[in-house]
Amino acid sequence: MKIKNPRTGQYYYEIFPPSAKELKVKTGLMREAQITWVKSGIEFRIDALQAWKEVVGEFKDELIDALCMDTGRKWETILEVDLLASFIDKWSNISRNFFSKTDRKTSSIPFLEIEQEYEPYSLVGVISPCNFPLFLSLIDTIPALLAGCAIIVKPSEITPRFIEVLQKTINQVPDLLGILNYIEGGEETGEELGKLTDIICFTGSTATGRKVYQTACDNFIPVFLELGGKDAVVVTETADIEHATSAILWGSVTNAGQSCSSIERIYVHRNIFHQFVSRLVAKANQLNLAFPSMDSGQIGPIISEKRVAIINEQLEDAFKKGAILKAGSRKCEELDGGYYCRPTILTNVTHEMKIMTDETFGPILPVMTYTNVDEAVKFANATQYGLSGAVFAGKEEEAMTIARQMKCGAVSINDVALTAVIHEGKINAFKMSGIGGTRMEASAFEKFLKQKAYLINGQKTKDPWWFG
Amino acid sequence: MKIKNPRTGQYYYEIFPPSAKELKVKTGLMREAQITWVKSGIEFRIDALQAWKEVVGEFKDELIDALCMDTGRKWETILEVDLLASFIDKWSNISRNFFSKTDRKTSSIPFLEIEQEYEPYSLVGVISPCNFPLFLSLIDTIPALLAGCAIIVKPSEITPRFIEVLQKTINQVPDLLGILNYIEGGEETGEELGKLTDIICFTGSTATGRKVYQTACDNFIPVFLELGGKDAVVVTETADIEHATSAILWGSVTNAGQSCSSIERIYVHRNIFHQFVSRLVAKANQLNLAFPSMDSGQIGPIISEKRVAIINEQLEDAFKKGAILKAGSRKCEELDGGYYCRPTILTNVTHEMKIMTDETFGPILPVMTYTNVDEAVKFANATQYGLSGAVFAGKEEEAMTIARQMKCGAVSINDVALTAVIHEGKINAFKMSGIGGTRMEASAFEKFLKQKAYLINGQKTKDPWWFG
Repeated sequence: MKIKNPRTGQYYYEIFPPSAKELKVKTGLMREAQITWVKSGIEFRIDALQAWKEVVGEFKDELIDALCMDTGRKWETILEVDLLASFIDKWSNISRNFFSKTDRKTSSIPFLEIEQEYEPYSLVGVISPCNFPLFLSLIDTIPALLAGCAIIVKPSEITPRFIEVLQKTINQVPDLLGILNYIEGGEETGEELGKLTDIICFTGSTATGRKVYQTACDNFIPVFLELGGKDAVVVTETADIEHATSAILWGSVTNAGQSCSSIERIYVHRNIFHQFVSRLVAKANQLNLAFPSMDSGQIGPIISEKRVAIINEQLEDAFKKGAILKAGSRKCEELDGGYYCRPTILTNVTHEMKIMTDETFGPILPVMTYTNVDEAVKFANATQYGLSGAVFAGKEEEAMTIARQMKCGAVSINDVALTAVIHEGKINAFKMSGIGGTRMEASAFEKFLKQKAYLINGQKTKDPWWFG
Repeated sequence: MKIKNPRTGQYYYEIFPPSAKELKVKTGLMREAQITWVKSGIEFRIDALQAWKEVVGEFKDELIDALCMDTGRKWETILEVDLLASFIDKWSNISRNFFSKTDRKTSSIPFLEIEQEYEPYSLVGVISPCNFPLFLSLIDTIPALLAGCAIIVKPSEITPRFIEVLQKTINQVPDLLGILNYIEGGEETGEELGKLTDIICFTGSTATGRKVYQTACDNFIPVFLELGGKDAVVVTETADIEHATSAILWGSVTNAGQSCSSIERIYVHRNIFHQFVSRLVAKANQLNLAFPSMDSGQIGPIISEKRVAIINEQLEDAFKKGAILKAGSRKCEELDGGYYCRPTILTNVTHEMKIMTDETFGPILPVMTYTNVDEAVKFANATQYGLSGAVFAGKEEEAMTIARQMKCGAVSINDVALTAVIHEGKINAFKMSGIGGTRMEASAFEKFLKQKAYLINGQKTKDPWWFG
């Protein structure tokens, strides 16, 4: 399977997905290794992950290079590599705390006691996307490892170059050998994983997510899906426009808009509309494409070639229906074979346009006005997605009134996409944005553990009533 | 759709499943009613359920009569009706406690605060089985109602007579009108429910459960399945044989073995085998069929006619392969058109026989010997199911050594099926016995709630780094 470079459009990498038979052998060995892994206890597992963290640190430059080749962008790469260490530390603490509890108690019937135990799933399958190839491959993997599972990770076939480097770091930690494996492959390999694992975690598009749900259903295993979004922001007339425009621009164009919780729709109170748009345009025009070099600007290429077509189609549809271009360009630009999209601000948009309803996954900022809170809420909820959202207002209560009515799992108040900054709070994806519990907080840990209870009759001579 | 009486084999009830269109209208109205239900708050919902509890108490005799007609058995009916009140009280307390927490806290970043909120699913679908028609229709319904959901329940088409009585009690509680609806129908109606609800909870066979998983997948909604079991009990040579035989007999023949957590396989240490079997046979022979009247004995009819054929087939297969009949009979008996199965004890059984691997759902007790702990564990785990199990031993540590190695969600120690007695402990169904979180404890409550977090930036002038 040949892989293109997003900066050149040239094929210059090749992956060799394992055959179904190879995968079966590999996962069989992983299941065996997992028996020791879980028996070794939580401190052993924390030590192994801490050791891995050190090794990743040593290979940091090589890892960044590979990820830059995968994605064509740099500062977001450094950000996601830097996240790894604190992410491992955070889950080390949560898991130590989780396993330190001894769960034995008396039940509501005095002579019956309950002892709680947790048994990790033997083998977890993780299928991760191309937009943050490293971090999104780890978001479920780290807690699952600490829970005591073995994990097989299949990153997107669009961004596979980092796999070899990362697997090299894993191989340097003997205690992780056979416990954590990254493999190359596309959709077929993902389907194969569904047959061989005990639980599957997927991050990616809603369309693919539905297929993964089907794979889980066919194999009768639990599934956790975090899928697309069409995050809205509402800006009230009391909002600090300077702050709001900076934050929203950041939330929309970071990683060239290729984040599930990217801001994709902006609803501004009509009384501040012109002032808001004028500041947003001024700021957007300060940003540059990361071309010709990755350091030339903030906006890297569109990683997936298929995405370029979708963005262009949505823009074309919008312009055809009357959208006005205030900044950016009418379509993605091809530069030296790579495709780039400037921060693009649109006004005169309506909910008849795909750009306002379908996931864009590009740095497009369509701005619409609203006249009252009810309308703002109605607009914000006018989507099949329900990942997250944001509200900017002069007073927190004013923002919360709107936020409480938004049908999504997380709302940032006077900020954007805070779920990407603090991995805290219990958060569900609403509507078509996902299935399954939160990925944040200690409670996310439990999805990798089967809950087992011992119900102990301490008064064993008590007989059933009919012999009583 | 015509329904048979399990005591006579005669059709003498008819149900009229709603059309797809009628269901759509009904669920639409329920969604509207739910908006008020959730806004009214937890104390209002507790009051409504307490009022319902009182009304059910008034109609208790009528409800018991209908359930006795549905199932053909009496004392188990009284048991499940009696459970209702304490079950409502238990969940009233859990839910009051759950909603009393105010979840606002500082995050790991000092100027970011998190406020946690929960939004109930609007409409929950419950599909419940024929073996405990009332209680198993309520096990998810009561917590879901208190969570703030509207619930539509479709009990098994095999036992639909109680629906009318129960709906009558619901209709007497104005605050529950349109919030809780019981409907008649078979598999088609269940499939229709998948299209109209936000989450589906199913209790029943593994075969049907897999279809429900498919329905949930097709409609992209979460699913919770509690399915079949093939619960094993291990009896060590130090066990109290008098106690063990009484408890195991109870655990195997209650409700004529028609419980998901019925004991269906008995592994006894070979040193006590003869003594064990002899006491078990003696006790089993003391039990009588609930025929000609429901008060004639402890063992009611097999509720589902299809089940009779399965039990007979498993028995025939066992005898063909060498099983020895120690008590009971070689097949179900037809008496006045109903089918009954006596407590039936088999020895000389092997794992080549269906009676040792497939779910029986009848009062059959196949007894096998084992020679050491490893073998006992191997035998107990030699099944595709993993619902629950039991261990009897002289010392608790001895029992726990075995219990810890059993691949199932709950193990009763020196007792059987305690999950049916105390609804406590976090318990997952293992293997083919289910998908989804525990139905016990406060954490079961959360599956009816979407988790929503507000991430609040209190220092709103902090700008993203690139404008910093």
